[in-house]
Amino acid sequence: MQGVAMVVWRKMGKKGFSSTSRALKSFNGYGYQINKSPPLLALDIPDIWTLHSTTNHGPPPPPANNSNEQTAAIIDGKSIAEEIRSGITGEVSRMKDAIGKVPGLAVILVGQRRDSQTYVRNKIKACEEVGITSLMAKLPEDSTEDEVLNVVSCFNENPSVNGILVQLPLPQHMDEEKILNVVRLEKDVDGFHPLNMGNLAMRGREPLFVPCTPKGCIELLLRSGVEITGKKAVVIGRSNIVGLPTSLLLQRHHATVSIVHAFTKNPEQITREADIVVSAVGLPNIVRGNWLKPGAVVIDVGTNPVEDPSSEHGYRLTGDVCYNEAVRVASAITPVPGGVGPMTIAMLLSNTLDSAKRAYRFT
Amino acid sequence: MQGVAMVVWRKMGKKGFSSTSRALKSFNGYGYQINKSPPLLALDIPDIWTLHSTTNHGPPPPPANNSNEQTAAIIDGKSIAEEIRSGITGEVSRMKDAIGKVPGLAVILVGQRRDSQTYVRNKIKACEEVGITSLMAKLPEDSTEDEVLNVVSCFNENPSVNGILVQLPLPQHMDEEKILNVVRLEKDVDGFHPLNMGNLAMRGREPLFVPCTPKGCIELLLRSGVEITGKKAVVIGRSNIVGLPTSLLLQRHHATVSIVHAFTKNPEQITREADIVVSAVGLPNIVRGNWLKPGAVVIDVGTNPVEDPSSEHGYRLTGDVCYNEAVRVASAITPVPGGVGPMTIAMLLSNTLDSAKRAYRFT
Repeated sequence: MQGVAMVVWRKMGKKGFSSTSRALKSFNGYGYQINKSPPLLALDIPDIWTLHSTTNHGPPPPPANNSNEQTAAIIDGKSIAEEIRSGITGEVSRMKDAIGKVPGLAVILVGQRRDSQTYVRNKIKACEEVGITSLMAKLPEDSTEDEVLNVVSCFNENPSVNGILVQLPLPQHMDEEKILNVVRLEKDVDGFHPLNMGNLAMRGREPLFVPCTPKGCIELLLRSGVEITGKKAVVIGRSNIVGLPTSLLLQRHHATVSIVHAFTKNPEQITREADIVVSAVGLPNIVRGNWLKPGAVVIDVGTNPVEDPSSEHGYRLTGDVCYNEAVRVASAITPVPGGVGPMTIAMLLSNTLDSAKRAYRFT
Repeated sequence: MQGVAMVVWRKMGKKGFSSTSRALKSFNGYGYQINKSPPLLALDIPDIWTLHSTTNHGPPPPPANNSNEQTAAIIDGKSIAEEIRSGITGEVSRMKDAIGKVPGLAVILVGQRRDSQTYVRNKIKACEEVGITSLMAKLPEDSTEDEVLNVVSCFNENPSVNGILVQLPLPQHMDEEKILNVVRLEKDVDGFHPLNMGNLAMRGREPLFVPCTPKGCIELLLRSGVEITGKKAVVIGRSNIVGLPTSLLLQRHHATVSIVHAFTKNPEQITREADIVVSAVGLPNIVRGNWLKPGAVVIDVGTNPVEDPSSEHGYRLTGDVCYNEAVRVASAITPVPGGVGPMTIAMLLSNTLDSAKRAYRFT
């Protein structure tokens, strides 16, 4: 899922360039009539990170403390996710026994992207393991928008489908926003609908679903006994899928949240003040050991493929955080892989279960 | 409008207590089944600010620089708002000449609150001045929810109404959320609908309306030539009406935003790092001179009535910011009154004009 987030990020980057100049004009107070409010800046302009000497392109800085020992506890997302999934298995069979129904998740995959195929395969496998029925709609790369919309509508009408997942990214010729907006709110288990996001952000409102990866990050913190309230939290990256909802969730838990993005001057300095750091940038090792306050808790959402001839597929996954440095500074950290990744799917299952319970009024 | 914000804030405080204990349970990782995600914290728990010695209850600290001179430029919201309103007047008459239509704003006032009556009177007066037609529905305090909903529905159907404004707070026996949700999105000139808020928060999305007070704050910055991109901004307070949308807007303008609230430890320390400070707490003089970085730009949204026998009504309005201290530290600051206040109404007029232009496809 994080992989998906990154793809979306890049895609938005391409899309957004045109708006940059408009944006800059309006910063300077020009370019809009006096009676008109300044043009609202489109947040789809690209977040292009300029790599500092502190990133993996420079020589490694000395560790923030003088020991070379690992001080950080490893937050084992894999085992926490398994725990959650076994709990879901229990709930699903309890539901089946009580009302003869099980939750259903429908996945829509358009095209042949290998990464998307892998993500979808993993999600369906995870559904089977916990007893959630999964439906799969595979459409060819050259399908029309209407063909996809029709599939979504079918799943919207199908009462045995409690969650609908459109695997992103969609082919370039399709309007992602248009298609996602058709997914019925009560089945938007990804929680990407703006109404969900607004309700997540606002006091006294409750979203129907919380996006899976951010929800997984918070779960990792809570289940590791990390207190969030009153703590300084820094979220690095501001994507719709991870950065934004994670910052909203952390604030809901009463952290003092700062959002660091590509326009931030001295991101390392701001990050160094945080008790909790969540990184969702999509650049390998951008967060170095000297970006972290000793004792900070680090949640690394990045899953960046980097070449590695020694590994089976010729590449391995690396996080945003320079792990070897961070473990000497942080008090706790999620590994990549095996940290946030497994939680994302567990939260998808959890959202689908919640959705089914709502639909069947089963408690 | 800020006055309204504060009332809402207090109201939410009352409402929210019950959820606090639930909340605290889940911080500690208890109180939820292993298979269930932790209960989502309701953001309607009260933000009760503990007043530090640095607030107006302690002796005034020495000014951050040793001079007693005012260094800050005064951001004259009154004259900027007038400028905007005269621009709107021009647009309204251009519209009238071109298509024979003028924008229409409908205001719904329930009950006899004196402050609400004043706000509504000012809004209607402002409409008249720029040529916007205003409709007014006054309902008695003991009206039923359905009676209010009916009035909203009428205005929803009325094509000459481009904006609908429900004056808050509503009487305690009414469900504010339910009533606000009935206002048709294309007429929600207050921009309080969660879908609007979600679209304001998300990359690549555009809200139909931006809430008036936050929009006014950004306008004051832009029209004063303050660059926002890449700057550190601190928003103090996180209400749905001011704090939240202001933080989202500042981020849209590529500031690095931190949100300070009642659970924040050392708010003064975090605020002291900001290039731009927007305060919307609702406590007189809570932000002292030593909370500010020399040269910071200060937008004071607070309008707090404090007793003043010497003044006509026995009270005067004071901001959140200790003005006499701040003017010696900041590079620019909004006065109270005469800062953000006039902008809020100007932005309401601007939103109503934009709404009419959209409805009549007039550019």
